[in-house]
Amino acid sequence: MGLTIGVDIGGTKIAAGVVDEEGKILDTHTVPTPSTPEGIVDAICAAVSEAGKGHRIEAVGIGAAGYVDDKRATVLFAPNIDWRHEPLKDKVEQRVGLPVVVENDANAAAWGEYRFGAGQGHEDVICITLGTGLGGGIIIGNKLRRGRFGVAAEFGHVRVVPDGLLCGCGSQGCWEQYASGRALVRYARQRAQATPENAEVLLGLGDGTPEGIEGKHISEAARAGDLVAVDSFRELARWAGAGLADLASLFDPSAFIVGGGVSDEGELVLDPIRKSFRRWLVGGRHRPHAQVLAAQLGNKAGLVGAADLARQG
Amino acid sequence: MGLTIGVDIGGTKIAAGVVDEEGKILDTHTVPTPSTPEGIVDAICAAVSEAGKGHRIEAVGIGAAGYVDDKRATVLFAPNIDWRHEPLKDKVEQRVGLPVVVENDANAAAWGEYRFGAGQGHEDVICITLGTGLGGGIIIGNKLRRGRFGVAAEFGHVRVVPDGLLCGCGSQGCWEQYASGRALVRYARQRAQATPENAEVLLGLGDGTPEGIEGKHISEAARAGDLVAVDSFRELARWAGAGLADLASLFDPSAFIVGGGVSDEGELVLDPIRKSFRRWLVGGRHRPHAQVLAAQLGNKAGLVGAADLARQG
Amino acid sequence: MGLTIGVDIGGTKIAAGVVDEEGKILDTHTVPTPSTPEGIVDAICAAVSEAGKGHRIEAVGIGAAGYVDDKRATVLFAPNIDWRHEPLKDKVEQRVGLPVVVENDANAAAWGEYRFGAGQGHEDVICITLGTGLGGGIIIGNKLRRGRFGVAAEFGHVRVVPDGLLCGCGSQGCWEQYASGRALVRYARQRAQATPENAEVLLGLGDGTPEGIEGKHISEAARAGDLVAVDSFRELARWAGAGLADLASLFDPSAFIVGGGVSDEGELVLDPIRKSFRRWLVGGRHRPHAQVLAAQLGNKAGLVGAADLARQG
Amino acid sequence: MGLTIGVDIGGTKIAAGVVDEEGKILDTHTVPTPSTPEGIVDAICAAVSEAGKGHRIEAVGIGAAGYVDDKRATVLFAPNIDWRHEPLKDKVEQRVGLPVVVENDANAAAWGEYRFGAGQGHEDVICITLGTGLGGGIIIGNKLRRGRFGVAAEFGHVRVVPDGLLCGCGSQGCWEQYASGRALVRYARQRAQATPENAEVLLGLGDGTPEGIEGKHISEAARAGDLVAVDSFRELARWAGAGLADLASLFDPSAFIVGGGVSDEGELVLDPIRKSFRRWLVGGRHRPHAQVLAAQLGNKAGLVGAADLARQG
Repeated sequence: MGLTIGVDIGGTKIAAGVVDEEGKILDTHTVPTPSTPEGIVDAICAAVSEAGKGHRIEAVGIGAAGYVDDKRATVLFAPNIDWRHEPLKDKVEQRVGLPVVVENDANAAAWGEYRFGAGQGHEDVICITLGTGLGGGIIIGNKLRRGRFGVAAEFGHVRVVPDGLLCGCGSQGCWEQYASGRALVRYARQRAQATPENAEVLLGLGDGTPEGIEGKHISEAARAGDLVAVDSFRELARWAGAGLADLASLFDPSAFIVGGGVSDEGELVLDPIRKSFRRWLVGGRHRPHAQVLAAQLGNKAGLVGAADLARQG
Repeated sequence: MGLTIGVDIGGTKIAAGVVDEEGKILDTHTVPTPSTPEGIVDAICAAVSEAGKGHRIEAVGIGAAGYVDDKRATVLFAPNIDWRHEPLKDKVEQRVGLPVVVENDANAAAWGEYRFGAGQGHEDVICITLGTGLGGGIIIGNKLRRGRFGVAAEFGHVRVVPDGLLCGCGSQGCWEQYASGRALVRYARQRAQATPENAEVLLGLGDGTPEGIEGKHISEAARAGDLVAVDSFRELARWAGAGLADLASLFDPSAFIVGGGVSDEGELVLDPIRKSFRRWLVGGRHRPHAQVLAAQLGNKAGLVGAADLARQG
Repeated sequence: MGLTIGVDIGGTKIAAGVVDEEGKILDTHTVPTPSTPEGIVDAICAAVSEAGKGHRIEAVGIGAAGYVDDKRATVLFAPNIDWRHEPLKDKVEQRVGLPVVVENDANAAAWGEYRFGAGQGHEDVICITLGTGLGGGIIIGNKLRRGRFGVAAEFGHVRVVPDGLLCGCGSQGCWEQYASGRALVRYARQRAQATPENAEVLLGLGDGTPEGIEGKHISEAARAGDLVAVDSFRELARWAGAGLADLASLFDPSAFIVGGGVSDEGELVLDPIRKSFRRWLVGGRHRPHAQVLAAQLGNKAGLVGAADLARQG
Repeated sequence: MGLTIGVDIGGTKIAAGVVDEEGKILDTHTVPTPSTPEGIVDAICAAVSEAGKGHRIEAVGIGAAGYVDDKRATVLFAPNIDWRHEPLKDKVEQRVGLPVVVENDANAAAWGEYRFGAGQGHEDVICITLGTGLGGGIIIGNKLRRGRFGVAAEFGHVRVVPDGLLCGCGSQGCWEQYASGRALVRYARQRAQATPENAEVLLGLGDGTPEGIEGKHISEAARAGDLVAVDSFRELARWAGAGLADLASLFDPSAFIVGGGVSDEGELVLDPIRKSFRRWLVGGRHRPHAQVLAAQLGNKAGLVGAADLARQG
């Protein structure tokens, strides 16, 4: 099979990209994300049609946030779009006249990294995506493992603190409340509030108030040695690494891949995550350790992964 | 392949059993567990030889507590025996002259239940064993998943309480400190200490002191309606069910199988576990629910599973 | 000294009451709570003037939510009113021409209960108020203990869960997030969401949705045996009682008094609180136990207490 | 009143000291601690008699670990000595012919610091003692507050982690499991186990193994910049400071005094405790902050305090 199109449905824009068998993106087209379910279907089809112009496309893969069923056809539930049992595969197939595969976006990104990024050569890889929230994907025995009903690898909603922070999912103490971009901002704001004298750089990058602190400020301030910013990354890493240690107890992969916007900071965040992982790894002296690797495909992982999953049918 | 022998190495005795292709045990032989590594090898070989008399045996499968390497040959580490990188497969093969497979005992038990017990017909099953501690096994896509290095499915050592109870593994807050036979006894003793007026039946079954309470007393007292005993089971179930909900977020299996001595109590413990599982399952309204099933093979699961794994080579 | 006026500043109304030396309320006047700081001063003065008509008043005591300074004159900070270092005593004294004492409302309520309610005859009493949030007051050696700077007894903001629920105060894991009227509603909604089959009575009292559940529904449903409602009270009691056990380790009073709207449910909530208190009391076999008593003055405790504090000068 | 004798009952020795009205120790005598209750009474009397030789003594104060009743006469329970309702005051009075006061040792130490050490000039002081465990004392309004039944200020057994570490008291998650000398050693051993490459100095000071690490090694290694040692102190300080913030919410004192063996390290431990205190203090921007002071009397605080309490009768 030759070229396929991967579609990434984001909160603000929908990107479609033509991808070849080596995971190379040949063409892309981007449209704003509409607010209604039907508008989104329209937008997906338009982006696919536009990106595919002049290419011979054989299939389409769509990555979407939410629960996707075991047939990779229906979105059971989406946190940010009003989809409930939405037959996305059928709707798009009818419109674009190509085979369509729907996949959870974090699964798609994990597959992209496994096939063409940091996971190449590994048979058993666990990916985590530290974006606004925390997602991930499981590759075992060279296959994406989606669970019996399609909703495996919801790492962000594993409970790490009993009676802990409320989560958008309705539960409490979910991992993504402690290890994610949103958590990082909360850490920084809380610390800047309590000890502003340690956050002068950080506060100076925003509007001077704790509430004005945003993710990009924390990275920049941490690079400049701002104590609150550095400590916020350390706190994030403490939870991320401890969670990876738990995943090692469960899955024992040969590698973890850490992606998502937070991981764009590279060693600033990866180094403390590795330390924390080692700190908490159970039985660490008696077992080989998984590698903790930075993702390589950036925010293209989902698009490329979705395209490749479509190729595989 | 015809008959194989499964070996189960317990804390007090080593059992070897001849098992046919339907998982039926044709013959068994049991010897006491010696205290030295070499003594244990001797005992395994003696039990195998004795059990196999009069049968044509084709392979031997050994289930052992501890980390078993990816080749299913070497015990990397055992918690209760002084094994460090013990080449158990080679040692036994040389002595019994048959192919040998070594497997983690909880993995072997999970495989036994999947093949011949509660897991039949499921492709994706997670087993947990509530014994003295908490172990388990992962079947995905009809295969036992051992991890890249052989040490996956160490469920009991996932951290469920940050800064929680010390565990024998050196870590803190491990799931098995909250959901296991040992935890059940602790719950009962603590409650009987604090409110002896609610534990009259329970205290009466032992020597009258909280320290004298043992697991069997708790089951009997719970059946008689003893408040502390009932509440202790409920506390165990609270943690067990919440952990299963986390495993559902990770693995999304079609079924969970609950085995181990604690599960011998049947619905007394399974019913509250199911309730707690439902209580904590993330996204429960938007996804199919895994079944929570009682194990069917009792304490033979490990022996039968090890024998079958040997058959599969 | 004879009659004094107590003022209770609530979220929706301000009540002034003429109180005699036995804590009896002779006259009251109530006005709506204005939205601005100055409006509130006006309203206080109007209520005092109106209530006092025909009485010879010697002093005024005002109970206000927030931090009140060590001189009982200035509100340092109020959570619901835009007061920052508000010289409330001076402002009201100038207008009403009487000595004024300002006190934290939970402190005032504690004093009221100690003098004329459940705390009579005790020298060392700890009061907790389970209202929307959780407040309290400390009486040691027959004196209200306000701390060096006036802000003691902020029980609701003691951390009971590290990395726990966000609190309006900016911290996490505060006791009032787990033991308060607001917590009770959260417990009920979460449980009704997860297991609606156990909340039929409860859901039927509101609009049928978990979000429609309110505090009054939970009490009524609990009385009717609704499982979710009963379990929600039990969860509240679990946290309330464990917190009282901690307060016993710290203060070792002869009695705890439990007031606030939640305590209006009487034994429905007090009985499980007592059980939980006993469960968690450290060293319980080696020490006398404090009593856990229901408050007696209901929502008049603050007004009566403030009036009496004014009398004492 | 002139001279009194203070007695400090330690785990290995019993010290008696003649103390004047300025808290100065004029003479001391020390004997080994016997193992039986009666032996200890003998030893106390012997030490008192020996120390008092040549002085005109008016009273004796005894500091003992455990619960002391409200009359300061009977030890209700002692954790390390087989005392249950031991009438220590009567027994010693009969033998030495002087008025005797018995006090909890941490209370006595707190009183010593308040009268002659870091607490001079403060009316409301909370002392915590970071020794092997965590104890403390409460001074409010210039008086030692012992609670209604004599067992207040058991700070070490406030629950700071639900379902946390087991404590010798039978409860779980007690503060002293996280902030004490014993906790410090645990932190260091766990970290040295997980990441020995960061503990080279620390491991070198003992026998090279994590188990060989002792408290004194951690201080020395921290001074030399050993990462694990520094991080262990930071972890201790994290818990100590968060606990002080809770005590500020409860007691609002003008000062905290930190004593006990751990505090001998001075700013190495006090500086991070202060930072952590500030980090967690609720409402910190709207209230005056208590000072966090180092104790001044070292391990003499208990003896001096007991002597002074005896003087006050």
